[in-house]
Amino acid sequence: MPEKDVVTACVLVIGNEILSGRTQDKNINYLAKGLNDIGVRLQEVRVIPDVPETIIATLNECRAVFDYVITTGGIGPTHDDITSECVAAAFGVGMFRDQSVVDLLQSYMKNTPLNEARLRMATFPEGAELVHNPVSAAPGYRLDNVFVFAGVPQIMQAMFDGAKNQMIGGAIMLSRSVSVELGEGTIAPGLSELQDRYPEIDIGSYPAMRQQRFGVSVVMRGTDSDMLDAALVELKDMLTALGGEPKDESIADPAAAPSGADN
Amino acid sequence: MPEKDVVTACVLVIGNEILSGRTQDKNINYLAKGLNDIGVRLQEVRVIPDVPETIIATLNECRAVFDYVITTGGIGPTHDDITSECVAAAFGVGMFRDQSVVDLLQSYMKNTPLNEARLRMATFPEGAELVHNPVSAAPGYRLDNVFVFAGVPQIMQAMFDGAKNQMIGGAIMLSRSVSVELGEGTIAPGLSELQDRYPEIDIGSYPAMRQQRFGVSVVMRGTDSDMLDAALVELKDMLTALGGEPKDESIADPAAAPSGADN
Repeated sequence: MPEKDVVTACVLVIGNEILSGRTQDKNINYLAKGLNDIGVRLQEVRVIPDVPETIIATLNECRAVFDYVITTGGIGPTHDDITSECVAAAFGVGMFRDQSVVDLLQSYMKNTPLNEARLRMATFPEGAELVHNPVSAAPGYRLDNVFVFAGVPQIMQAMFDGAKNQMIGGAIMLSRSVSVELGEGTIAPGLSELQDRYPEIDIGSYPAMRQQRFGVSVVMRGTDSDMLDAALVELKDMLTALGGEPKDESIADPAAAPSGADN
Repeated sequence: MPEKDVVTACVLVIGNEILSGRTQDKNINYLAKGLNDIGVRLQEVRVIPDVPETIIATLNECRAVFDYVITTGGIGPTHDDITSECVAAAFGVGMFRDQSVVDLLQSYMKNTPLNEARLRMATFPEGAELVHNPVSAAPGYRLDNVFVFAGVPQIMQAMFDGAKNQMIGGAIMLSRSVSVELGEGTIAPGLSELQDRYPEIDIGSYPAMRQQRFGVSVVMRGTDSDMLDAALVELKDMLTALGGEPKDESIADPAAAPSGADN
């Protein structure tokens, strides 16, 4: 991977359970934040069903477009865990059984015999470099620019945290955020002018209801800290001139963004 | 839209704030469940950034493939709200200002003047049929098979609930779900056999940690209630024979699927 400023990623959430509404995804947000921290920009997420043709085609489309692709889900022992077969098919490679993983799983399972189903978790596309699973033993892996992780959030997080040092990030996106109890329409003209003056900063406006009152958070993202600070001063001046009381907001604080999404 | 058995949908989440990790999406799960209730199968979700080329290309790709496309986000008054312009470009149509919406917004805003930014919320792609917004007045809309909703969850939900009677669903996916404290690998062979005997049922296996113990939920989905009940009896017999104590699980109960995702 060459060193560059903008390094991109795509997350593929593989799982009927998200699409059926049974399960609320918790991996996208964790990965979005974690990738941002290492200078990798999450540029697309796709949630796709457990359908081989869909998984293979999506993998091949996305691994050609993005620097990194992360998949979550479908690497367990049951019949609906088909991610590894699909990764192998997408790369046009065979599968191999890793004896060290067989031993690991046998040790983890203690006296329970390793049936064929469990042995599938020791079977990987050729070329896979394993990613340690400190939670439940069965590893994830990396193949070229594709990282294949489990879907269970605790396991996915452990795998990502263990593997992220293998991802070479670019310039890290920094951010400044303020909240204000003004209408979006009130601040829109000034915000648009500010965006025009700072084309290198990405300015987002996110309305949210808090205690039945509409407010708005303005988030400025960019790679130049000084530029962000200068824009922040202008932003606060603009909001104050409109009668608002802008408050600094920590993006890391989930309470600061309780229900929001772009209107 | 012709009447048919399998009616599909795709959700496009338009918003940098989801990709940056600032905001945890709450719309996908609501839409997944709501679509399922009316016999529409959510088959793909894409989260894409506020980039016109990406939005336009994705819209055109997805509206050709799926029966319905639902977009969330980007219809507010600020410079980063570009969904409507992109929808118009995707359909190759112009935009029009709806005077009834101008009046509605003016009435909602009371004494605040409608600046150009707010008037953007009364401007729609030609052919748009408006979708009422009981929360904050500015409407969503439908254009052909594309539904354009707000991103703020409270508003999005109200728009979907108001518009869903316009979607003609197919056969409704029913489900049966049981949880059991057995390893996935233990139940995998029997589950695979069951899946082979019931090819019309989609059987999913979802491990989850509860109070530090691994358990698994088995979800069976299909359109034939009697067939599901027959398969459920076989499933429970199989799990009991393996030493488990299968418990019926309500999929509607979020506590039943606290952290899960396909392994």
